[in-house]
Amino acid sequence: MAEWSNVTVVTKANLYFDGKVTSRTVVFADGTKKTLGIMLPGEYEFGTAAKEIMEIQAGELKVLLPGQSEWQQISGTGEFTVPANSKFKLEVQSVTDYICSYIEE
Amino acid sequence: MAEWSNVTVVTKANLYFDGKVTSRTVVFADGTKKTLGIMLPGEYEFGTAAKEIMEIQAGELKVLLPGQSEWQQISGTGEFTVPANSKFKLEVQSVTDYICSYIEE
Repeated sequence: MAEWSNVTVVTKANLYFDGKVTSRTVVFADGTKKTLGIMLPGEYEFGTAAKEIMEIQAGELKVLLPGQSEWQQISGTGEFTVPANSKFKLEVQSVTDYICSYIEE
Repeated sequence: MAEWSNVTVVTKANLYFDGKVTSRTVVFADGTKKTLGIMLPGEYEFGTAAKEIMEIQAGELKVLLPGQSEWQQISGTGEFTVPANSKFKLEVQSVTDYICSYIEE
C-alpha cells in the first residue's frame, strides 16, 4: 500500500465544482506540495499556476491538454503533465482518484 | 490553517457509495488513525468497527445515532460520537468536509 511518511496534511479540503472535484493538500519535508484528489463524473476545465503532473491512480477520463486538438483517453492508471499558467479540460467518465504534483520551475 | 505534521498519508482514496463519500487515511506518529473525508448530498448508512468521533469541518447534514429516534441537525461545524460495532444514518444536505477519528478501546 503506497503511503507518504513524515508529511504535513492540511485538514480542510479544497472544493471545486460543487464538490464534484475535491482534494487534500500534502506538504513534504522538502517543502514541495502535492494534492490527493477525487473527481466524480463530469466535464471540467482547470487552470494551472505552477506546472502540474497529474497521476491517475484509478479512474477513467479524457484529457485535452493545452495547444492540442486530440483528447487523450486514460483508463485505470496514467499520467499527464500540464505546463504552468495554462488551461486543460477533463471529461471524467468514472470516479477518478488522482495525485497532483506542483512543480515550481 | 489547521494542519497535521509528521503524519503518514495513504495515497489511495477510500471510496463508498459510488464515490459520493470518499476519504483519505492519515496515521499519526503514535499509531492512531484518522480519515479526512468528503460526503456529497445523499442518504447513507455506515457501520463502525472501532468507536468513531466525527468532526464536521463544514457542511449541512442530519445524523441518526444508534438507539436514538430523533435526528440531530448539524449546520456548519459540529461533532458526534458513534459507539463501536454499531450503525448510524446520515442525510447529507450539502457538501460535507469531515474528520473521522477511530478510537481503539
